[in-house]
Amino acid sequence: MINTHTGPQPADFADVRATNLAVVLRFVRENAPCSRADIAASTGLNKATVSSLVADLIDRRMLRETGLTENRVGRPATMLVLDGSPYAAIGLEVNVDYLTAVAVDLAGTELLSWRRSFPGATATPNQAVAAVAALARRVLNRMGKEARQVLGITVAVPGLVDVDGSVRIAPNLGWRDVDLAGDLAKALRDPGFPVLVDNDANLAALAEHRFGAHGGAENLVYLTGEVGVGAGVILDGRLRRGGLGFAGEIGHIQIDPSGPECRCGRRGCLEAVAGIGAVLKDTAPDATPAELEPEVDEVVRLAEGGDAATLATLTAIGANLGRGVAIIANVLNPEVVVLGGYYVALAPWVLPAAQDELALRSFAPDSGGTRLVASALGYGAAALGAAARLLDSIDSGRLPAHG
Amino acid sequence: MINTHTGPQPADFADVRATNLAVVLRFVRENAPCSRADIAASTGLNKATVSSLVADLIDRRMLRETGLTENRVGRPATMLVLDGSPYAAIGLEVNVDYLTAVAVDLAGTELLSWRRSFPGATATPNQAVAAVAALARRVLNRMGKEARQVLGITVAVPGLVDVDGSVRIAPNLGWRDVDLAGDLAKALRDPGFPVLVDNDANLAALAEHRFGAHGGAENLVYLTGEVGVGAGVILDGRLRRGGLGFAGEIGHIQIDPSGPECRCGRRGCLEAVAGIGAVLKDTAPDATPAELEPEVDEVVRLAEGGDAATLATLTAIGANLGRGVAIIANVLNPEVVVLGGYYVALAPWVLPAAQDELALRSFAPDSGGTRLVASALGYGAAALGAAARLLDSIDSGRLPAHG
Repeated sequence: MINTHTGPQPADFADVRATNLAVVLRFVRENAPCSRADIAASTGLNKATVSSLVADLIDRRMLRETGLTENRVGRPATMLVLDGSPYAAIGLEVNVDYLTAVAVDLAGTELLSWRRSFPGATATPNQAVAAVAALARRVLNRMGKEARQVLGITVAVPGLVDVDGSVRIAPNLGWRDVDLAGDLAKALRDPGFPVLVDNDANLAALAEHRFGAHGGAENLVYLTGEVGVGAGVILDGRLRRGGLGFAGEIGHIQIDPSGPECRCGRRGCLEAVAGIGAVLKDTAPDATPAELEPEVDEVVRLAEGGDAATLATLTAIGANLGRGVAIIANVLNPEVVVLGGYYVALAPWVLPAAQDELALRSFAPDSGGTRLVASALGYGAAALGAAARLLDSIDSGRLPAHG
Repeated sequence: MINTHTGPQPADFADVRATNLAVVLRFVRENAPCSRADIAASTGLNKATVSSLVADLIDRRMLRETGLTENRVGRPATMLVLDGSPYAAIGLEVNVDYLTAVAVDLAGTELLSWRRSFPGATATPNQAVAAVAALARRVLNRMGKEARQVLGITVAVPGLVDVDGSVRIAPNLGWRDVDLAGDLAKALRDPGFPVLVDNDANLAALAEHRFGAHGGAENLVYLTGEVGVGAGVILDGRLRRGGLGFAGEIGHIQIDPSGPECRCGRRGCLEAVAGIGAVLKDTAPDATPAELEPEVDEVVRLAEGGDAATLATLTAIGANLGRGVAIIANVLNPEVVVLGGYYVALAPWVLPAAQDELALRSFAPDSGGTRLVASALGYGAAALGAAARLLDSIDSGRLPAHG
């Protein structure tokens, strides 16, 4: 049945064949092993069209035939499966204290996951580009040894990224107007694949949508709990970026007009009242980026020991966070809001207060069905999502050049 | 060029033919008169497929051939245009003090626009269903005389509407759990067309997207300025409803923790600090729904005369409204936020303060490109959008039954 609320999106005019290739690819991804006849029956495409599309995808080594045949009356059918092995999608993340790299194949299977420390808060943009390029070259080298075609590289950055991959503002990296996509492509001598840059929350949301255990939720918001607090917004199964790509900037919405001053100059922003700085305001107000993780571990230790001051702080953080989540729930009504970053470790103490506040402030009954959960993907979510973005791109019909 | 950020949405598996019919219909809507060859060249569909799709649409009397031929080398081509005349889409609106009815043809041309007073705030749900059904029957009667096939009826309601067309809460109508879609279909003796119910802000947003002058903005938020304040959210060209259909409930987000109590029981909600009640709090705090329009006219008269107290009130309303708009801009980054309802008349005094606050509170530079404007569609926006929703449904491939 077609849901009258979220029916099919009409395809762009020029793109029907690409869309149909993607329909076949996605069908096999979800239903393999399956036959050409299965694809035709389920997609409404006629058999000749399906045969032509499948031939194209086999030629590109995105599908392959198996020796299996379907057990049924009539001529046995050759079965198809996804053939992701010749490909690699690479995701990188720049953060205030680390760089990460992830590579996955076409099926989403992880090929490598690396993390190295990096002084993001003090490095210049040029130093960052050099460090990211060096890490990318090491990953490319590895993929080359495995004879994989690289689908692209996406870099996750904690900041405003415009539609061209230029970083407009990344306050916690101290960047302004850095053409990271262009500079990185140059440093890699214009490789023959896309080099993209995107906001870290956006990419983590993609990772949760593709790999997270959220019951197929098609409306999902991811909240980063790093030095900054940002949101990645998925509605009707796709990332929503707004007009200039700046959607999801929830960190500087005012939660408490009488709250503390925020680094952005405003007062009582969500980031100021519920970010990691607020968590550590009593125990480690001057923590450097590299010290954040051990300091959060110390807060967890205190909370586990029942330290009253720590518990009170975390309850207050949870309530403030819940006010931000309630804004998201009222405006977007997602099935799930996923807390990432440092919130994951703090979830046992932060979540209950946040959930109470969400229920209290939600206009729809029962919080409009919005569940609030901690991410199970850990700190690698943004880099994993950076790789996932390249797979999404293929699922949407932008197939890699082949030959 | 395919924009890597907002590329094509893969079609639902079962729906490729319907989607392709819709692609052809939309192409002709935007490019008529055009030939079958034009359609094939621009959509990537092969010519045999286009001929089959066009034949189907002609059979349904959605397209027709004209005597025109394209001036070009080779065999002259028969040109196609939209044939909307045999159809009508009907939109109704229930509000606290009126009912409206609009009908448009397939091309969006207005066939009728009626408004009648109705005691929405005091009528029971049963009385409302009877009144809406009576109005619907009059419209159906008229369309029958014009020998038009009715594509459907959509009713706009100021409240939470679930995906089945049941009104969960409509506080200003005093409704809770009213199955308006079901009751209206019954009152109309189960007509052979869809009877839908939707939130008024959602539908007004659809009207602005289809008929408003917003330069093709694909990310647009409409704010109702009626007794309640709600939002309709269009992102990437489609209405976004969230998981249960409750997105856009911005009216009860807390703007000012020390603000006045809201009718919802919370404090300092956007509706309480920037809704029509706040506008009239000094001049007509006890206005009945029927008195709102003349009372707003009186406020406009005072403002035009330079009355200091009125100007101060409207500036404060504008600032509060701007805080709500800033939340929308930060979270969704739309190209445009459209103010509807009573805000239209008050725009000369409310808009400047709202724009200042938006600029101040927007994290992205230059308000992230979000423009704040007053609607040019007037009070009929929701009913017009109710009709537009049926056209959108057709553009998405849900063609009416024919025979």
